[in-house]
Amino acid sequence: MSNEEQYQGYRGPAKEVLLANEVAVWSHVIVHTDTRDYEGILLPRSAGDDSHIVIKLLTGYNIGIAAERVKSIEEVGVKKANYRIPEKEFPYDPQLPNVILLGTGGTIASRLDYRTGAVIPAFTPGELYGAVPELADIANITTRKLFGVFSENMGPKQWRITAENIGKEIEEGKDGIVIGHGTDTMHHTAAALSFMVQNPPIPIVMVGSQRSSDRPSSDAALNLIHAVTAAAKSDIAEVVVCMFGTTSDKYSFLHRGTRVRKMHSSVRNTFKTIGDIPIAKVTRDGVYPLRKDYRRRRKERDVIINTAFEERVALVYYYPNMHPDIIESLIDNGYRGIVIAGTGLGHVNKPLYEPLRRAYEEGITVFMTVQTLWGYVQMYVYDTGRDLLAAGVIPGQNMLPEVAYVKLGWVLGQTDDRKEIIRMMLTPIAGEITPREQYDGFIIGQGGLPEADEFLKKFS
Amino acid sequence: MSNEEQYQGYRGPAKEVLLANEVAVWSHVIVHTDTRDYEGILLPRSAGDDSHIVIKLLTGYNIGIAAERVKSIEEVGVKKANYRIPEKEFPYDPQLPNVILLGTGGTIASRLDYRTGAVIPAFTPGELYGAVPELADIANITTRKLFGVFSENMGPKQWRITAENIGKEIEEGKDGIVIGHGTDTMHHTAAALSFMVQNPPIPIVMVGSQRSSDRPSSDAALNLIHAVTAAAKSDIAEVVVCMFGTTSDKYSFLHRGTRVRKMHSSVRNTFKTIGDIPIAKVTRDGVYPLRKDYRRRRKERDVIINTAFEERVALVYYYPNMHPDIIESLIDNGYRGIVIAGTGLGHVNKPLYEPLRRAYEEGITVFMTVQTLWGYVQMYVYDTGRDLLAAGVIPGQNMLPEVAYVKLGWVLGQTDDRKEIIRMMLTPIAGEITPREQYDGFIIGQGGLPEADEFLKKFS
Repeated sequence: MSNEEQYQGYRGPAKEVLLANEVAVWSHVIVHTDTRDYEGILLPRSAGDDSHIVIKLLTGYNIGIAAERVKSIEEVGVKKANYRIPEKEFPYDPQLPNVILLGTGGTIASRLDYRTGAVIPAFTPGELYGAVPELADIANITTRKLFGVFSENMGPKQWRITAENIGKEIEEGKDGIVIGHGTDTMHHTAAALSFMVQNPPIPIVMVGSQRSSDRPSSDAALNLIHAVTAAAKSDIAEVVVCMFGTTSDKYSFLHRGTRVRKMHSSVRNTFKTIGDIPIAKVTRDGVYPLRKDYRRRRKERDVIINTAFEERVALVYYYPNMHPDIIESLIDNGYRGIVIAGTGLGHVNKPLYEPLRRAYEEGITVFMTVQTLWGYVQMYVYDTGRDLLAAGVIPGQNMLPEVAYVKLGWVLGQTDDRKEIIRMMLTPIAGEITPREQYDGFIIGQGGLPEADEFLKKFS
Repeated sequence: MSNEEQYQGYRGPAKEVLLANEVAVWSHVIVHTDTRDYEGILLPRSAGDDSHIVIKLLTGYNIGIAAERVKSIEEVGVKKANYRIPEKEFPYDPQLPNVILLGTGGTIASRLDYRTGAVIPAFTPGELYGAVPELADIANITTRKLFGVFSENMGPKQWRITAENIGKEIEEGKDGIVIGHGTDTMHHTAAALSFMVQNPPIPIVMVGSQRSSDRPSSDAALNLIHAVTAAAKSDIAEVVVCMFGTTSDKYSFLHRGTRVRKMHSSVRNTFKTIGDIPIAKVTRDGVYPLRKDYRRRRKERDVIINTAFEERVALVYYYPNMHPDIIESLIDNGYRGIVIAGTGLGHVNKPLYEPLRRAYEEGITVFMTVQTLWGYVQMYVYDTGRDLLAAGVIPGQNMLPEVAYVKLGWVLGQTDDRKEIIRMMLTPIAGEITPREQYDGFIIGQGGLPEADEFLKKFS
């Protein structure tokens, strides 16, 4: 084993105590402390504090022991093999739907062994079955890794590959598709797939995890169970994001791919449907729609895969005193489309009017969205909004800034004609523009505190 | 009267019907419709639909009449003078606190006559007293217009003038300061004043309105009453934003100037404290703190006004496939500081690492924040975060992106020394970094649906 493998994830005082006692991870050890002894397997660690070592006790429980309490560590043997995820052939039941899990990278595909406490990746059907055997009661699962990139490195190239593979799996007759994805840009990819994969006959469910599965609070396994349930059983043939709907592990929500946004850097119920309520709630028992306006599953429907994408598109987030050079640089660098996230109803300061006018004249199409995230652009209310309209800036209704960015790249991939660009941008294709935002969708009421259950009562 | 004055705010079919009948706003008219007649004063309109004319009936109520229903309009006389806000001298009561209202532009200072239905600006003490006589029971009010700009045109210049005038008013012994401000960038100005005005001895309360006062749903008057109440009576000597806390007009919240953000383009309770709960609730009856960690009013405290500001600072909002030219242009254009709003825990894609490294080498200081808005930057969790740290990008904890942007401009106004820049940025000055974000502060629980009252019960 390399040094890195021997002390996997350990640093600081915790690593020092391992070095001092010459023991490596996966060793069967007895740890002598000031008060008592602990026997078990020394587990590797993922990100965490640097002052504890973690032992899987013979009872199966994990325990963290402060490095400063350790008097000595006695090695009894190495048991790594025992702590691999037990791999068994994923059972096939002809009565169950067929679901494919497409891997793109991200936490869910790399750490799924929530019951053993170990941090070994689980992705093949056999590994998944070993780690989360309940999956076999829901669907017949196959898996395919498309690529492995960190979520923040996802872009048009990966969106295209994913869309094309979705098309392929639909053609091959799958009943549902689950896409494992890092959570950082899951909503951007969800938007891209919503435009690139049109008219899907089956559910396309994106899933990830906010906590890796070596932590007791991991959401990886349950999110996956919910996602496979949605893909296999639900009637919702759209691109959706399936993630925890509450701080507890009672249910996940299915969020429409064009209205969802990551709203917290670390909590598990970080994804929120913006300006609306989620499409459905998912539990281990099934899928419970919260609304009726979704595309129904209909296997005979023909999917359209359209992956054209113009990469010279930028999203500009306005801030007070923004200088004209921000827009001028985009013009000079050959951008073809700009989405602005303006303040209030869709405003920027006066010094930007002139470069925006120039952008218009040079054939760049500019759309306005609002950085408040909730609510509509309304540029007719104030004179300044009307000045921006006169400069050629087009109100983007209530498209989320990131969704408008993704859509503009996709639209510019199809056409150069300004009229057609505007027509396509302002015609809702996958729910990205809604006729109204219901108040339930504003900040409150989507999960979290006990009130969320109150809110959900309306639908049960 | 000019044509614009004659048909003030009217357009489309509504204007046509006025033109056809040769009547102008402020006329005393009888409107004959298909069903009945309406007698009253033809009111000017602000932004609104183009298909109704609005009459103030003799009963005092306003009514909108669809242009298509109008058969003819008969002019009885012109009564504009009657619909001026009755101006009386603002009473002085030596027992009451002295509050100054500083005007910066924005809706609240321009339209305050919520009871008459007219759209005349009210700003002088006499006009305010005429429009909102309750104010005289709360404080002795004087007013001063600093400048008049649309909120989106506010920037360092206006922040400086405002801060200096706050200092002056404190020196002159005022008991509280109210700042009328457009809502678009009220949170940016609140952050700027939080840094520029340190150690304030009295409340500094920013207030605006989301609905102009010619609309029955206007929040202008009540927000102003709440703001004057907070400035005159509260014990909270901080820069705060006072705006509606709920969809009803039951109360406003006082939001800390560095933790507040506009979260909806149009609703009245658009301002939310992010990652925390508001400091206090304000009703007509008084100020009810929701927490204890605020600076107390203490008149003998010396305020420090520090308005230095470096304008070459940019806020970059990351999106998938962002190209290096976005960062390179900032370097080439002489920016001295950059705040990134990254995805997830604070990430950007790999192609940006190299230009960020170059930015570091050229003396530009770069801070990372999260575009999720809620939660902390944590760049030690993944390798990619550690790569960014190695490129010199500094985690900005849980500062909101716009607050970090304002603070970086302010810090770079004080020092060129990188160590000192980092030390100042990461030392909380006005609550912009918090040791933890309580869960109550995540999306739910701040007002809106009835649940908000449940939430508030905890504090009453």
